[in-house]
Amino acid sequence: METSGFYNDNYSSGSSDDDLVDLSANAQDLLEDLSYDEQDHSQAEASLFSPGGRGQNGTAKLLDLLDDGLHRVGTYDDFNTIDWVREKSKDRDRHREINNKKRQSVLDLLLSLSDAFSGWLLMLLIGLMSGALAGGIDIAAHWLTDLKEGVCLNGFWFNHEHCCWNSKETTFQERDKCPNWKSWAELTVGVNEGASAYVVNYLLYVTWALLFAYLAVVLVRAFAPYACGSGIPEIKTILSGFIIRGYLGKWTLVIKTITLVLAVSSGLSLGKEGPLVHVACCCGNIFCHLFTKYRKNEAKRREVLSAASAVGVSVAFGAPIGGVLFSLEEVSYYFPLKTLWRSFFAALVAAFTLRSINPFGNSQLVLFYVEFHTPWHLMELFPFVLLGIFGGLWGAFFIRANMAWCRRRKNTRLGHYPVLEVVLVTLATALLAFPNDFTRMSGSHLISELFNDCSLLDSSQLCDYTSQVKGGAINNNLSHGANYSSSLYDRAAGPGVYTAIWQLALALLFKTLITVVTFGMKVPSGLFIPSMAVGAIAGRLLGIGMEQLAFYHHDWPIFKGCSSSTKCITPGLYAMLGAAACLGGVTRMTVSLVVIMFELTGGLEYIVPLMAATMTSKWVADALGREGIYEAHIRLNGYPFLEPKDEFEHKTLAMDVMRPRRSDPSLSVLTQSGMSVEQVEAVIADTSYSGFPVVVSQESPRLVGFVLRRDLVISIDSARLCQEGIVGASQVLFTEPTLTQPHGGPPSLNLRSIMDLSPLAITDQTPMDITVDIFRKLGLRQCLVTQNGRLLGIITKKDILKHMAQMTNRDPESILFN
Amino acid sequence: METSGFYNDNYSSGSSDDDLVDLSANAQDLLEDLSYDEQDHSQAEASLFSPGGRGQNGTAKLLDLLDDGLHRVGTYDDFNTIDWVREKSKDRDRHREINNKKRQSVLDLLLSLSDAFSGWLLMLLIGLMSGALAGGIDIAAHWLTDLKEGVCLNGFWFNHEHCCWNSKETTFQERDKCPNWKSWAELTVGVNEGASAYVVNYLLYVTWALLFAYLAVVLVRAFAPYACGSGIPEIKTILSGFIIRGYLGKWTLVIKTITLVLAVSSGLSLGKEGPLVHVACCCGNIFCHLFTKYRKNEAKRREVLSAASAVGVSVAFGAPIGGVLFSLEEVSYYFPLKTLWRSFFAALVAAFTLRSINPFGNSQLVLFYVEFHTPWHLMELFPFVLLGIFGGLWGAFFIRANMAWCRRRKNTRLGHYPVLEVVLVTLATALLAFPNDFTRMSGSHLISELFNDCSLLDSSQLCDYTSQVKGGAINNNLSHGANYSSSLYDRAAGPGVYTAIWQLALALLFKTLITVVTFGMKVPSGLFIPSMAVGAIAGRLLGIGMEQLAFYHHDWPIFKGCSSSTKCITPGLYAMLGAAACLGGVTRMTVSLVVIMFELTGGLEYIVPLMAATMTSKWVADALGREGIYEAHIRLNGYPFLEPKDEFEHKTLAMDVMRPRRSDPSLSVLTQSGMSVEQVEAVIADTSYSGFPVVVSQESPRLVGFVLRRDLVISIDSARLCQEGIVGASQVLFTEPTLTQPHGGPPSLNLRSIMDLSPLAITDQTPMDITVDIFRKLGLRQCLVTQNGRLLGIITKKDILKHMAQMTNRDPESILFN
Repeated sequence: METSGFYNDNYSSGSSDDDLVDLSANAQDLLEDLSYDEQDHSQAEASLFSPGGRGQNGTAKLLDLLDDGLHRVGTYDDFNTIDWVREKSKDRDRHREINNKKRQSVLDLLLSLSDAFSGWLLMLLIGLMSGALAGGIDIAAHWLTDLKEGVCLNGFWFNHEHCCWNSKETTFQERDKCPNWKSWAELTVGVNEGASAYVVNYLLYVTWALLFAYLAVVLVRAFAPYACGSGIPEIKTILSGFIIRGYLGKWTLVIKTITLVLAVSSGLSLGKEGPLVHVACCCGNIFCHLFTKYRKNEAKRREVLSAASAVGVSVAFGAPIGGVLFSLEEVSYYFPLKTLWRSFFAALVAAFTLRSINPFGNSQLVLFYVEFHTPWHLMELFPFVLLGIFGGLWGAFFIRANMAWCRRRKNTRLGHYPVLEVVLVTLATALLAFPNDFTRMSGSHLISELFNDCSLLDSSQLCDYTSQVKGGAINNNLSHGANYSSSLYDRAAGPGVYTAIWQLALALLFKTLITVVTFGMKVPSGLFIPSMAVGAIAGRLLGIGMEQLAFYHHDWPIFKGCSSSTKCITPGLYAMLGAAACLGGVTRMTVSLVVIMFELTGGLEYIVPLMAATMTSKWVADALGREGIYEAHIRLNGYPFLEPKDEFEHKTLAMDVMRPRRSDPSLSVLTQSGMSVEQVEAVIADTSYSGFPVVVSQESPRLVGFVLRRDLVISIDSARLCQEGIVGASQVLFTEPTLTQPHGGPPSLNLRSIMDLSPLAITDQTPMDITVDIFRKLGLRQCLVTQNGRLLGIITKKDILKHMAQMTNRDPESILFN
Repeated sequence: METSGFYNDNYSSGSSDDDLVDLSANAQDLLEDLSYDEQDHSQAEASLFSPGGRGQNGTAKLLDLLDDGLHRVGTYDDFNTIDWVREKSKDRDRHREINNKKRQSVLDLLLSLSDAFSGWLLMLLIGLMSGALAGGIDIAAHWLTDLKEGVCLNGFWFNHEHCCWNSKETTFQERDKCPNWKSWAELTVGVNEGASAYVVNYLLYVTWALLFAYLAVVLVRAFAPYACGSGIPEIKTILSGFIIRGYLGKWTLVIKTITLVLAVSSGLSLGKEGPLVHVACCCGNIFCHLFTKYRKNEAKRREVLSAASAVGVSVAFGAPIGGVLFSLEEVSYYFPLKTLWRSFFAALVAAFTLRSINPFGNSQLVLFYVEFHTPWHLMELFPFVLLGIFGGLWGAFFIRANMAWCRRRKNTRLGHYPVLEVVLVTLATALLAFPNDFTRMSGSHLISELFNDCSLLDSSQLCDYTSQVKGGAINNNLSHGANYSSSLYDRAAGPGVYTAIWQLALALLFKTLITVVTFGMKVPSGLFIPSMAVGAIAGRLLGIGMEQLAFYHHDWPIFKGCSSSTKCITPGLYAMLGAAACLGGVTRMTVSLVVIMFELTGGLEYIVPLMAATMTSKWVADALGREGIYEAHIRLNGYPFLEPKDEFEHKTLAMDVMRPRRSDPSLSVLTQSGMSVEQVEAVIADTSYSGFPVVVSQESPRLVGFVLRRDLVISIDSARLCQEGIVGASQVLFTEPTLTQPHGGPPSLNLRSIMDLSPLAITDQTPMDITVDIFRKLGLRQCLVTQNGRLLGIITKKDILKHMAQMTNRDPESILFN
């Protein structure tokens, strides 16, 4: 029988659950039945043994449940950490069994084959579903965003582009002003020019935004509190082995999908990329229920979730390789090679599903399709590094400001009015965003505009260059630029560009400030798009500056490389590098970021600038603060996450960390023989620990095994009911059952089968850096500490996290408490 | 003081070293002094304590050496396994020290900064050096390959292309026949046509090939036996923590670089990709000596080597991302995220260094630059999967055949004549290869020819399509194909293509057979190019077949998608997929293979066909045999490599694997007090174990710590010489030094400082799958086994490998023996 069971991480404190339950109070009842199949059982068990349970059942039912309970020792309670070693061992047992059977009959062979391919089938399903959902979200968000500005007469369900695409009356240039698309002013006051029309449009823009945001926050509050935020910090925690029940459930999926569309459409400064990872993980978790292999094993399920987070990024950007590397670098905890290959498959399936839906309308796989035609020059590395520095500084600033704001929200009355907060922020966003063209458009639209390399047909303000305006063709700049070098391809900025510069500068400031207060509100909100937007603005501004510098001072030695007949500076490339730098500064992604950007451009040509920008950005940001935004949020929420990247830097020993401390009473242990059932029950009643080491005897505390509180309670109660002669005075034995029954007295109760015979033990002199390494690599929940072979204490994951918090002068009590 | 030291893996067998030394007998003396700085010390120490040492030194020198020896306990002997936990702990200590110091003075701050950036500097150096070497190898191999056919009159150092590039007299089409390039027949008999010229060319081709191959094998034999083979199996073993001194030394680098050029030029069926990984790793290892951080720490050094192997693939194919993933997926054992980022940097630097050398002459980063312009059709997935099946079957066949041949070489007299073997195989290769155009050209040339999509200018036999020959322009096929669908773009094959089909079929057979006997010979030999060549031939054949089918039967329903005006089938794409499938079948690479191929084509367009082909290939090959070629060679050579991909599938317990076995005498232990110096020396003399557990007492064998034989010997000898009053009867203590000295008797010797206070212990009931997991994840060398707190035995990595061999019905004695 499998002896791995569930128990609290907090060995020496039994009160944390109360605090944690508070966090999810509203959602718990609603979600639990939906998200996990085992829910009914664990609830029934909980009511069985808790003094204030929901009512006592008859003995017959009790017996059923006990039997059932005995079969369900492998599950975990909410807000607990899984034991990776046991889970994987369990899966190997299962696999071995199937493998051994497969030669017995054709049916068994088929079962073994279906078992082997269930992983691939699961990946296919996740890919298809996530791709379809992402496509749906894109289409719906596009439509709702346009609805804020006007409506299509052909049918209100058409978005602006679609509406005008259908009407073939207009030429390419005028497609924006097609007759079937009416702005709200045109519909109501009949005109689209003048002050009154502006006011009507403004008003309706703000009203729609408020409506969408209000709906989003109310839906989240009412049905799925877990649907808020980006979800990546929580997914990182879940993947590291924590259990947050309902976080990846059906309701969260439905509500997150709907509210994500609403939140994005409301024009708030947030993106859909992080939430898409959450959505993909929900899909993964839900599909896991179709396969016993994944439903019953928390470790295997986490492999699937790792792949699902790759899928999320893959559909967010259309970058499957980048998505897999993102999952590997940023999100995952345990990422075996098998998962790498499967993630890649799932990410590809999702990307191609999304492409066949074609929500961007450009037949391209990627969100921001860019094609640059000019090579970069070596001297440009200097502005690229500058962008990297900006990105790093901005990232560090953003993390600090956002943390301060979130802490304030947590600790003051602000946190009690989430709906009001969302409405107010939306109001401010909408009011400030509408007047500025660059903030009125959606974040992803803004980014693709900024990435864009101006071509002949571009009517954008950003492409308003003098030579183009006057001649309408690029070659004209040769005649126009007669007093400059006629071979210079760069152009002088026109009035449109100068206006755009001011608008962009204002947008930069606005986006920076509003994103700080937006990220962390109770609506689904991703951070990729806002930070990329800020970086892209900064990059484009620098790019335009460099371009004009090259145009007016092409004789400077640094522009020597430019004096050929090709274009010298590509402002769009600067925007892309700025976006990468800011995103890198906030998230501290490295390889995955470069690869995602590489997939967007599709050429190795720009990898060196990308590396220069992201590397600088990471170095600068790391120098100002070690944590990325996700780690900061994990710490803020006190999730028990053992960061795999940080090194433990202190010279403490296991004996300094283990419980009991020197001043505490000695460790509660059971002995392998000599204790009566009553004595064991007394130990259980007196303590709140979730597990007890079993030793040879009190005088000789040599470790025999480890037994879980829950298993112990279930087994004793079950034995008292079913096994004849078991009374309070019966001996409890953990020895080999071959021992002869002592003469006289009631029959003894042997519980060796529920004892974990292979608990890991380290010596009290083990340095903590090695201990932390062991915990991380093996995914342990607890570890026993011995001195000269005698059991001395226990270290849990929580003890380690508390110790690490103490060592960095943080409040150790913040861990695991919300 | 650091207590980690070195000792043999083979706890119960002390004889393996003799066998291993045999392998490297010729090289050891020559290389040891060159490759490792510590060499002189460890040799001195060895001679000190071995009875048959190279002569006794004076006491003064002895003392010096002993002092020195005490400082050098952190190093390892040759053919031993490192202890990852200790090495990493050591590095953390070092890092902590530097970090604590950095606020003391500006100098210390600078030191800390230089320490932080030394890793990046190292990566830069490795990238530059490997890129330069790869460029040099490419250029030299290109020149020597052409030298087999003729010589340039402008200067013998020009290769064919270079020679004709310089002479601007010829047109593009005739560049192949430029006047300055003379074939050997033209130079000697004056003509290049007719039988006599053919015979002369043939003869000189064979002669040059023999000369190159002979030189290569003689150089390898004489100077660096480690330079033979691909090197990837050994690098995998080294990265997993094994020490093979000199394998990555300076001499190996020099000889491997030279002989690689010779071997490739000789026309043998081998590639330069695997050896380039070895070359890059040599660079990495040599540059490690510049930085204390990496020189003194085997774990840190392995991080660098992981990055270096990424560099190797990066320069081999011009695929930096693929290289990093190759290192992650195929080669590395311990690959932290920091290494991922640094590998990526180094791979990029190397790729751009190589590009600036531009050895392929096409300004492209990649080895096989291909650009396909036609989309693939869904029905083509069927032939793609067929290619996958072929690749899998071929891979499985190749591994079996090559293993059988290598085993024969190892076990029969064949292995005693490596030079003769190389000469004979070269003779056979050259004789058979010359008459066939496709085998005469070099492997990489053949592959790029096969990948190539026929364009207008192609004069290759493979592009001899009817319509082209008659009209000279592609549009002519519209008129030619009047009786076929005029919109069909596929073309009827001309006589050239039909000839090529036969030649390719023969080449396929020839390459398959000759590669089986070539891979494993005593010359540097990579497997990537030959297997890709075989796959590309098969793929091209299938592609041409499909193309002709589509041309003649375009009305078949499966070709419905083709009836547009675009080309339907791209034979070059088939060749690429075939190459990927065969490479995948042989090496079992997955993601990295797809990404390398993706980087060659630079478009996500063909990822789905690539995945279909490689996935099928891997499944088929795995069904026929679990091991890839590298794992098979590791097993053949008996390297102690704990495969991280395989799951341990058996239900044994730690007690079944540990030593001593039930029938053996009990474990040799030391007690923490009560043993005299003489008694300890007797234990050392009686056993050959490399370490001894320290227990409380013989009666109560509770684990206190673990002490290494080598440390023990050094410390006792040093104490006898330097410490007053230490005689044979002195007590050896491992207890806390605060204990009061017992009255009377000689002073005691406290050796607690050399004891490892934190040995990892597991219980005897621990399932072996968990034990294997712990060994793998923590990188342990040995682990102690306890039962109820009493020490029972020990498990070493070698015990595990032997046990695994036994479980799969292989000879357990094959491990570690050559």
